[in-house]
Amino acid sequence: MVVMIRSEASQEKIEHLKKWLSDKELIVREFQGQEQCVLGLIGNTNCVDKDMLKSLDIVESVSDMTETFKASNRKMHPEDSVLEMPYGRGAMIGGGNFALIAGPCSVESREQITFVAKEVQAAGANFLRGGAFKPRTSPYDFQGMGSAGLELLLEARAATGLPIVTELMYLHNLDEFLQKEIDVIQIGARNTQNYDLLKELGKCTKVPILLKRGLAGTIKELLMSAEYIMANGNENVILCERGIRTYEQDYARNTLDLSAVPILKSLTHLPVIVDPSHATGRADLVPSMTLAAVAAGADGIIVEVHNDPANALCDGAQSLTPANFATLVKKIEKLREVLA
Amino acid sequence: MVVMIRSEASQEKIEHLKKWLSDKELIVREFQGQEQCVLGLIGNTNCVDKDMLKSLDIVESVSDMTETFKASNRKMHPEDSVLEMPYGRGAMIGGGNFALIAGPCSVESREQITFVAKEVQAAGANFLRGGAFKPRTSPYDFQGMGSAGLELLLEARAATGLPIVTELMYLHNLDEFLQKEIDVIQIGARNTQNYDLLKELGKCTKVPILLKRGLAGTIKELLMSAEYIMANGNENVILCERGIRTYEQDYARNTLDLSAVPILKSLTHLPVIVDPSHATGRADLVPSMTLAAVAAGADGIIVEVHNDPANALCDGAQSLTPANFATLVKKIEKLREVLA
Amino acid sequence: MVVMIRSEASQEKIEHLKKWLSDKELIVREFQGQEQCVLGLIGNTNCVDKDMLKSLDIVESVSDMTETFKASNRKMHPEDSVLEMPYGRGAMIGGGNFALIAGPCSVESREQITFVAKEVQAAGANFLRGGAFKPRTSPYDFQGMGSAGLELLLEARAATGLPIVTELMYLHNLDEFLQKEIDVIQIGARNTQNYDLLKELGKCTKVPILLKRGLAGTIKELLMSAEYIMANGNENVILCERGIRTYEQDYARNTLDLSAVPILKSLTHLPVIVDPSHATGRADLVPSMTLAAVAAGADGIIVEVHNDPANALCDGAQSLTPANFATLVKKIEKLREVLA
Amino acid sequence: MVVMIRSEASQEKIEHLKKWLSDKELIVREFQGQEQCVLGLIGNTNCVDKDMLKSLDIVESVSDMTETFKASNRKMHPEDSVLEMPYGRGAMIGGGNFALIAGPCSVESREQITFVAKEVQAAGANFLRGGAFKPRTSPYDFQGMGSAGLELLLEARAATGLPIVTELMYLHNLDEFLQKEIDVIQIGARNTQNYDLLKELGKCTKVPILLKRGLAGTIKELLMSAEYIMANGNENVILCERGIRTYEQDYARNTLDLSAVPILKSLTHLPVIVDPSHATGRADLVPSMTLAAVAAGADGIIVEVHNDPANALCDGAQSLTPANFATLVKKIEKLREVLA
Repeated sequence: MVVMIRSEASQEKIEHLKKWLSDKELIVREFQGQEQCVLGLIGNTNCVDKDMLKSLDIVESVSDMTETFKASNRKMHPEDSVLEMPYGRGAMIGGGNFALIAGPCSVESREQITFVAKEVQAAGANFLRGGAFKPRTSPYDFQGMGSAGLELLLEARAATGLPIVTELMYLHNLDEFLQKEIDVIQIGARNTQNYDLLKELGKCTKVPILLKRGLAGTIKELLMSAEYIMANGNENVILCERGIRTYEQDYARNTLDLSAVPILKSLTHLPVIVDPSHATGRADLVPSMTLAAVAAGADGIIVEVHNDPANALCDGAQSLTPANFATLVKKIEKLREVLA
Repeated sequence: MVVMIRSEASQEKIEHLKKWLSDKELIVREFQGQEQCVLGLIGNTNCVDKDMLKSLDIVESVSDMTETFKASNRKMHPEDSVLEMPYGRGAMIGGGNFALIAGPCSVESREQITFVAKEVQAAGANFLRGGAFKPRTSPYDFQGMGSAGLELLLEARAATGLPIVTELMYLHNLDEFLQKEIDVIQIGARNTQNYDLLKELGKCTKVPILLKRGLAGTIKELLMSAEYIMANGNENVILCERGIRTYEQDYARNTLDLSAVPILKSLTHLPVIVDPSHATGRADLVPSMTLAAVAAGADGIIVEVHNDPANALCDGAQSLTPANFATLVKKIEKLREVLA
Repeated sequence: MVVMIRSEASQEKIEHLKKWLSDKELIVREFQGQEQCVLGLIGNTNCVDKDMLKSLDIVESVSDMTETFKASNRKMHPEDSVLEMPYGRGAMIGGGNFALIAGPCSVESREQITFVAKEVQAAGANFLRGGAFKPRTSPYDFQGMGSAGLELLLEARAATGLPIVTELMYLHNLDEFLQKEIDVIQIGARNTQNYDLLKELGKCTKVPILLKRGLAGTIKELLMSAEYIMANGNENVILCERGIRTYEQDYARNTLDLSAVPILKSLTHLPVIVDPSHATGRADLVPSMTLAAVAAGADGIIVEVHNDPANALCDGAQSLTPANFATLVKKIEKLREVLA
Repeated sequence: MVVMIRSEASQEKIEHLKKWLSDKELIVREFQGQEQCVLGLIGNTNCVDKDMLKSLDIVESVSDMTETFKASNRKMHPEDSVLEMPYGRGAMIGGGNFALIAGPCSVESREQITFVAKEVQAAGANFLRGGAFKPRTSPYDFQGMGSAGLELLLEARAATGLPIVTELMYLHNLDEFLQKEIDVIQIGARNTQNYDLLKELGKCTKVPILLKRGLAGTIKELLMSAEYIMANGNENVILCERGIRTYEQDYARNTLDLSAVPILKSLTHLPVIVDPSHATGRADLVPSMTLAAVAAGADGIIVEVHNDPANALCDGAQSLTPANFATLVKKIEKLREVLA
């Protein structure tokens, strides 16, 4: 740890601080610059509250040289993680195994989910997504079909063999998710820092967790949330960039931060996927943003595909039609060949 | 609800949409502008998914004329809410009752919390704050004293009679908080959209909930989170502005959004307080930001006050010393007199 | 124009407003919803100050149905613009003509700029970039070589035939830029709303203007700045996404907003290019972000390539080496083939 | 300057860097931490490009210990600057002299500006504001009355004796501003980094410059822009917080960053004022935000006051009525007494 002292700090206060640090059994080395003094701390710096240090009036800044990311850190684990699905349904994610996760935003009916599942499978998807529990900003909005929706997902899985990805919102549903052998448990952007949930996902299961970046979450926070799961015992985490909240709100719901893909890939061995549907909120932007995500090096994408091709109302929805999706998959495949 | 149609929309698609809306038993009125068609919808518009409508290719925008905030809405409840403490410890919040909530960030020891409690009471505080369960971005950081810390808070309460405000992080601790008669349950910025927790706080208790704005939460989201608690049965919610995440990160931890105070006061009857300590992260900014919050019309403030006046290291910490706090309270009182 | 009236507005005030609007020779149509009144205005709404209307206490919102973008609007000009270089140096931008603009951040010496020019040309670049006038946040920092740097760029152009792209910072240098037949005049992010400069670029020349998005500029503002140039007579504008300012500042200088590419392409016929070097500030992120920009549909890229391959210090700089650039160009070409 | 080396850097590269730095006549001191090496540089570090250093692959971060702010720095000039108006019209700003700047957004007519000038003077204003040249995002919007508006301002000044504050947009108008003895020249948010303009304002005049923070400008950038003026010869700069661009856009135009006031006051000796009218865009928020600005320690405020009390349409406009303003001034005065 390196502590920069403000130039106006009195020698007395600096000595006071050095003594306090030495008392914590740290070795303190002083470097006197032309204008400023710097203290280098050697030893177990966990005993020092970095925020407290920073807030001292004589301290200008504190730099931590130890790694804040441990389990997820690529330095500790240089190879890409490859996650295998736990219930023998085959698909893998990471290390060259591209995840093509597709399906409707919400499960609406047996016909709908089974129809879409078959369509996306035919187009090349290797995972089926679909929401049974929906996080809604308003308590007065539709909250999803719940357990009945999960059952319909199981039926669609049985019909196609596709492993399923669905969101867990409430801790009390975790048992149900495990009993129903949900293949990948998704944690939504509002729960990225719900440490209660994250800890239990670490303790109770080895099922892969698809962890979305927070609504305005930093890259660091996303990794630290992954650490909450991993430090508690479940190393199978998939990170998902899904757009961040910025001042630009006129033409897309969020700003898709594609540089997060290579940045995360350099920091961690975990797979990194992208959700262009929620990021943009506009179906017409999904194909170009999907291809950009692939070019940026993503390990997979999760896109919304909706049925109802006969209903003209769906033309412009956030979701792609199965036909649009099939066209997109062909382009993804060509792109991946070229980039390989 | 008013739906603006894009100028290039075909008449056929507009008719298709009008029929679809009529089928939902809505009255559809068409207004044909010079360049654009607008549809006005009358009836129960809850049956229509606004997001879906917006995403149609022929739709430019959708405006909802119904109120999204219900229980918290000042229109439905023009008078300021006045919240009484449930366990007979006297202090009230709202409607002219100013909340002066002070105490250390974390409970550290019996001596510390009791000492600070007495000091802030002597200075004029009417609530004691102190964290027993601490939300930390990293799983490797100190997570607070937990239940032992709660016990120490009870002792400090017994010694002073001050009602206590402390953060609930985990649902499984709610019973303990209720049994220990915690006077005000604080929900931190990372849990503002933890709907699981919010619902239970609505169902299981009438204890006042101090709800902090999310790390990068909108004013709308804060109110909708209050709705989650209120719609489930607990109308005693206190809103708290605590700084928002912006691009400006060089000199303060967050950007304190004081205009949120008059905006919230115009939208809702709930009390609105301000946390200048977490917003700025710098003790030297706390006094001026506290006074600004009072001038902006806040119903109270929650500030960090730490003991340890003998330790010179604390000069510049995020927390005020008891002496600084006492000086600040005198200024607050003068300010409130003048503004009354 | 559509004006939404607040539900609590008195009938008297609404009538007052309607009269005021009618007096401006607008036809006012009233639509009475269940909860709210809406006014539709037909006629020349330019005579009404939209901001003033919005700020009336009885007005909830105002929607403008007329197009704010005129000259740049794709609706008025559905085909992609193709910009030809004015001085007969051949390269074109837009409508399938991909711009590969490369070169050093700053012109440093004759050897440097001529060496890099030849290297990037050999790798496939069709434009040479290089800064002679550098915008610096601090007045105490190096401000570029100035006119001497321009001369060196002309020499590099003479040696290679590559058209040159360089930044104009000051109005008083415009004559010099025109006399020296600078092929593309770049306007930097700090000058995107320097209307003085934009107007003159519209009046005095037909040379293509490479207009960068502001430091925290919206897509609308970028287009309106293009309008300032176009409305004054110069339709040859190239838009450039170069990263926006967001709360995420730990791993890259800015957040590259690649969804701006398809959004801009849908709104305007002007060419849209991407600057991954300034957006990220990290050479290791430039290749993946360049490929992502191509996949997102950009009409070109502008990247920093620096000489000095012998100096190991340059490994990780923001600039690519000529060799890295050559490798990248090959990938871009393959990608463009596949996406065609 | 302190350079943190990445833990994985090879010794060879570190030696290479040390040699390169020594060759620049810097003294290089090495501090070897447990996990990381740190280099301290002593001497004239201006010869090193900090950005280049940062981008080296072996460098983790670079901290500059020299002061980036020079002329504006409070360390060099501990006393508050007190700015006197240059043309003998009396009012001062800074060091306890509170600036109460009021007037309409735009000059509209002789009657309007003279009427408002008299009203705000009677209420206690000591400066008159009014825009003759208006910066507009769109080239198709009204751009102000121009020189004719300036003339009307002069008449209002003659009628009241109030010094005037008005915006300079274009360099070519500077002579006119100086000839007409404009008392305070305002530089708007879009021109905060128009270095061309800033340099000339430094070279050509000693008239006080009211410099607004950029649309999404940092505190550092605002100070550096002041340096551009001061380093070129004009030390009379007034800084103005006017709201910043954030994700919160539903209820106010910008987010007023009041913590910028005490932060700027600690960093610089220049006066700091606040513009609550442009920050919020809502007249109903102006009084509370004005009082909050005063409580935060501002040296003045600049608010919009509009005539037209007879026209009911103006009730809710961004501007205060003269009567509202007079009420507000009384509160400001009381507040200042209490805070003194």
